[in-house]
Amino acid sequence: MAIIETVIVPTHGQGLYEFTDEAKDFLARADIGTGLLTVLVRHTSASLLVQENADPDVVRDLNAFFARLVPPANDPSMAYLVHRLEGPDDMPAHIKSALTQVSLSIPVLDGRMMLGRWQGLYLFEHRDRPHRREIVLCASA
Amino acid sequence: MAIIETVIVPTHGQGLYEFTDEAKDFLARADIGTGLLTVLVRHTSASLLVQENADPDVVRDLNAFFARLVPPANDPSMAYLVHRLEGPDDMPAHIKSALTQVSLSIPVLDGRMMLGRWQGLYLFEHRDRPHRREIVLCASA
Amino acid sequence: MAIIETVIVPTHGQGLYEFTDEAKDFLARADIGTGLLTVLVRHTSASLLVQENADPDVVRDLNAFFARLVPPANDPSMAYLVHRLEGPDDMPAHIKSALTQVSLSIPVLDGRMMLGRWQGLYLFEHRDRPHRREIVLCASA
Repeated sequence: MAIIETVIVPTHGQGLYEFTDEAKDFLARADIGTGLLTVLVRHTSASLLVQENADPDVVRDLNAFFARLVPPANDPSMAYLVHRLEGPDDMPAHIKSALTQVSLSIPVLDGRMMLGRWQGLYLFEHRDRPHRREIVLCASA
Repeated sequence: MAIIETVIVPTHGQGLYEFTDEAKDFLARADIGTGLLTVLVRHTSASLLVQENADPDVVRDLNAFFARLVPPANDPSMAYLVHRLEGPDDMPAHIKSALTQVSLSIPVLDGRMMLGRWQGLYLFEHRDRPHRREIVLCASA
Repeated sequence: MAIIETVIVPTHGQGLYEFTDEAKDFLARADIGTGLLTVLVRHTSASLLVQENADPDVVRDLNAFFARLVPPANDPSMAYLVHRLEGPDDMPAHIKSALTQVSLSIPVLDGRMMLGRWQGLYLFEHRDRPHRREIVLCASA
C-alpha cells in the first residue's frame, strides 16, 4: 500500500532549493523497505531536478543558463508571448517547467534512495516572488 | 497487481492536447485506491507534459517557444541535421521529445491524481500531419 | 516486492548509448509479470532518454543539437559559467542533464516493456572522457 505525504518548500525567488533531507525523513517514516519513491511538484511554474549538491556554483550556473535560454517576457526576443497575466516571469516559468521535470521516480533499497554520491533532489523555482511550493512524496513497496 | 490500458489521442498538427479526463476515467475503472499512475507515450516524435489548463494561451505560448528553440530542418540554422527522412518536422520532433518527457509518474490518493489545481496532462504533438498517438496508462497500488 | 539491480554502461565520449537489451534481460530475471520498470541514472553529468533506435542518424543529430544549445564552457557565449572544476565539458554536462531525464518509468505487461515499436532506452553521456555509468533498474509488480 502506497504512503503519501505533502511537504512544503518555501522559496524566495528563482533558483534551486534542495529537499533531499525532507525526502529521507519521509522514507524513514514510511518504512517501506525496498520499493519506489515518486515525487510530484503540484505547480506549473516550478519544477524538479536531480542535480549535484557538492559545489553550490552548479545550481547557480543552472539557474543562469535557464534565465538566458528563456528570458523574461519583457525581453524583445520574447515579444511573441501572449500569456502575461502575472508579469514578465509568468510564461517563462511555464516554459522552464516544461524543459525540466514535474515528477521524479527514485528506486529505494532498504529504506534509502539509490541516488548517486553527488545527487540531491531540488525544487526549481521559476517565479520571482516568494512562494510556498507543495511537493507530493509517494512511497510504494 | 498493476492495471494497464492504452488510450488513443488523435492529433492534427503541432501543439498540446489535454488527456486529463481520459486519465481520470481510467483511474475510476482501475479502482486502485491509493498508489501510482504511470503514463508513457509510445512514440519518439510526440511527448508528455504536465501544464496549466486554465488559460489556453499557456499551451499556445509553449508551442511557440519550442518552435523557435528547435526550428524546422529547412531553416538555415538547422543545416547540420542529417536525419530528414520524413520532412522538415521529423528530426525537430525527436529533439523536442528529448527536451520534454516520455513518461510521467503521478501519485494517486483515494483514486484521485494528486495534481495541483491548475495542472493538466498533455500530449505534446511535434509532427505536422494528423496522428493517432498511443498513451499507456498504468495504475499500481 | 521490488527487485533492484545496477547495470554499468561504459562510455567513451559524448553521445547516446543504448541499453534496451540490458533492461530486457533484467526484466526476464526479475520475472514480475505486469508492473513497472523504473530507471535511474546515478550521475549528474549523464542522463536518460527514450528515443528512436531505427536510424542511427537520430541519436547523432540529437547529440549535435545539444552541443549547440549548450556549448562548452570555453565558448565565449558561456563566459558566465562559474563551475569549471573539471574542464569545459563539466558544467554543460550538468545543464544537458537538467534538460533531459534522470529517471524513466516504463509500464511492463507480461514481462515486456510497453515501449513503442521504434523506442529504445539510452544513456546520454555528456562528458568527453570515458566513464563507467551506473544505471539502477527497479522492477515492481
